[in-house]
Amino acid sequence: MKRISILGSTGSIGRSTLSVTETYPERFQIVALAAGKNLEAAFEQARRWRPRMLSIAAEADAEGLRTRLRQAGMNDIEVVYGAAGAVQVATHRDADFVVSAIVGVAGLEATFEAVKAGKTVGVANKECLVAAGELITAEARRQGKPLLPIDSEHNAVHQCLRGGRMEEVERIWLTASGGPFLNTPRSEFSSITVEQALNHPTWKMGKRITIDSATLMNKGFEVIEACRLFHIPPSKVEVLVHPGSTIHSMVEFVDGSILAQFSVTDMRLPILYALTYPERIPSDMRFPVGNLRHLDFCSPDMNKFPCLRLAYEAAEAGGAKTVALNAADEVAVAAFLEGSIGFDDIPKIIEGTVSATNAAKMESIAKVLEADATARRYAQEWVLGMARKTVRPRATSVV
Amino acid sequence: MKRISILGSTGSIGRSTLSVTETYPERFQIVALAAGKNLEAAFEQARRWRPRMLSIAAEADAEGLRTRLRQAGMNDIEVVYGAAGAVQVATHRDADFVVSAIVGVAGLEATFEAVKAGKTVGVANKECLVAAGELITAEARRQGKPLLPIDSEHNAVHQCLRGGRMEEVERIWLTASGGPFLNTPRSEFSSITVEQALNHPTWKMGKRITIDSATLMNKGFEVIEACRLFHIPPSKVEVLVHPGSTIHSMVEFVDGSILAQFSVTDMRLPILYALTYPERIPSDMRFPVGNLRHLDFCSPDMNKFPCLRLAYEAAEAGGAKTVALNAADEVAVAAFLEGSIGFDDIPKIIEGTVSATNAAKMESIAKVLEADATARRYAQEWVLGMARKTVRPRATSVV
Repeated sequence: MKRISILGSTGSIGRSTLSVTETYPERFQIVALAAGKNLEAAFEQARRWRPRMLSIAAEADAEGLRTRLRQAGMNDIEVVYGAAGAVQVATHRDADFVVSAIVGVAGLEATFEAVKAGKTVGVANKECLVAAGELITAEARRQGKPLLPIDSEHNAVHQCLRGGRMEEVERIWLTASGGPFLNTPRSEFSSITVEQALNHPTWKMGKRITIDSATLMNKGFEVIEACRLFHIPPSKVEVLVHPGSTIHSMVEFVDGSILAQFSVTDMRLPILYALTYPERIPSDMRFPVGNLRHLDFCSPDMNKFPCLRLAYEAAEAGGAKTVALNAADEVAVAAFLEGSIGFDDIPKIIEGTVSATNAAKMESIAKVLEADATARRYAQEWVLGMARKTVRPRATSVV
Repeated sequence: MKRISILGSTGSIGRSTLSVTETYPERFQIVALAAGKNLEAAFEQARRWRPRMLSIAAEADAEGLRTRLRQAGMNDIEVVYGAAGAVQVATHRDADFVVSAIVGVAGLEATFEAVKAGKTVGVANKECLVAAGELITAEARRQGKPLLPIDSEHNAVHQCLRGGRMEEVERIWLTASGGPFLNTPRSEFSSITVEQALNHPTWKMGKRITIDSATLMNKGFEVIEACRLFHIPPSKVEVLVHPGSTIHSMVEFVDGSILAQFSVTDMRLPILYALTYPERIPSDMRFPVGNLRHLDFCSPDMNKFPCLRLAYEAAEAGGAKTVALNAADEVAVAAFLEGSIGFDDIPKIIEGTVSATNAAKMESIAKVLEADATARRYAQEWVLGMARKTVRPRATSVV
């Protein structure tokens, strides 16, 4: 029986995780849940999975939730809240496995504390590896516990890596759908609308990650994540555009053999893999291999998609540069979604913010959060400047 | 330092093995070689690799070879001959690893003795697994030593299987180029010429295996080999046509993940893998992953290629049936190459021979050789009957 805490239980990955655990009640038990602001969903999850602890985002909601649970006969569920509540969920003494799926930097502290507490952590939160990857992976190594990737690309890499040892890896090949603008001429990028950018060809995802897929920044983040997760330099991580997204990623070994992983595009599959690793257990998520007909590939165009180049540069520099990359991207994407800036302004804001940031080493989660806030302010200021059609803000060092 | 004996050193796999070992002189040492009838090649190999023992096929050639080696100052090379000589090479006390690459049933005894002597064996000889697979794999399990496949498909499967445990395997997918007649209508099969059949789209190989690729019998043999090597029933081995032969094979796991292996089409790669397993060492055999553009697949047509169906049936029955399948195929292919029978007569001879054979369990290599000889005589008789355009021979039990 694996005992699980979920950070971000009411989000997409959180709900998929609960769905997976529900399929195998003899294998998994839910110990603690950290939900967000959706009280109704949190209450329903508590009723259905009877965790020992339930955390919600706002202190103001905690007492009301406690009362409601008591009235429904669930006195035994401890209600906690906020960042400290998420840490309590992450470090719950009855949990063996923690799924880190809180979106954004809000998930950093709780994830880091889970790793420090010796839990096995399944990572779905991008910021854990992009912004705080050096810190968190170093701690996981110190604890001798695996960090198991829950996004499809790194999960695929993790599977392929079983075909050899890390020192036998020549290169990691991350596949990319290429997004909706793979074949759009660069000259049309300035007139791309929000609606066009939200139309992702293969995966249905949240808005930010969909825009990040359209700019290839999401693939750039994944390059950084791969570097951190697998302790490999950016020069050994390559991106191959594969519009069908059938093959999720590949590993090339020094002897010349390449292993590739594919499966249906269902997040429950990497979640199940992470939850059961090193075992595999039967699922109904069958890819119809016999119906496989065509797989297509092409090279990514870094000139058309400068975000990918920016990510490689930040990965190489490390430290606060990757923090700034993520923060600036979040600000720029939000501004694009609001209509304040154009699609091709996104990389400009990111590049400006990252180049104004020193590659300071991040020694604590607090430092990461500080660098994140500074970069956000800088990027925000730039967005305002752009929105007012004024000149770019003064380039001051942000860290 | 891995110390190697090669059975079939002057053949294609034997020469490739020597080429691989030559690239890594600090890792591999040649202990003993069993050559065929090519005395000149055997002498040259002795001079170049200085084995402790050299076996040749014919007794009549042994004394002359001894004299020549002595005159060239190589008194220290022990010359042996024939089946017993091959066994001496296979069981040489200084050898850790034996490459089994003698073509045909001639390689069976020596390979079996190598396994019995506790050597790690790299298997390139098809008959070892098709005709004597149950016997040889059972002995390898008893010895607790791996049998490492040296053909590209099973080598690929072996690599993919590292992604999980055998009981976690849902299915093995062997890819097939489809041969030169993938898109030829069945109605034209009777007029296929030898020249057309020898024109394989992707691999350059010997004549028999090229014809076996054109009939898909080679893939059928591989289905049987996979069953024997990986202890898996034929129902769990599938064939997927993949004309480019980029992906060498795949493994589908119970959780829904599929791992696929690809690489350049160079036999030195699976040889290197087998020689270094469980390690991987750097090679110059690089597949240009970044240039990957299209991979195409389709389902095999068992009606058009009845040899594949016959192989599945023989795999299911086991014992003497697979011996007969191989023997009858060798006879039928030789007859086709001589112009005695048509391309579409090949499966008829095989089907007739296999159905006239009882599925007797093969308890020894001697029994395998006996069943092989009986099936050959039966198939031969049928070929003569066909060549004379007479009726099919009487169906007598051949085992």
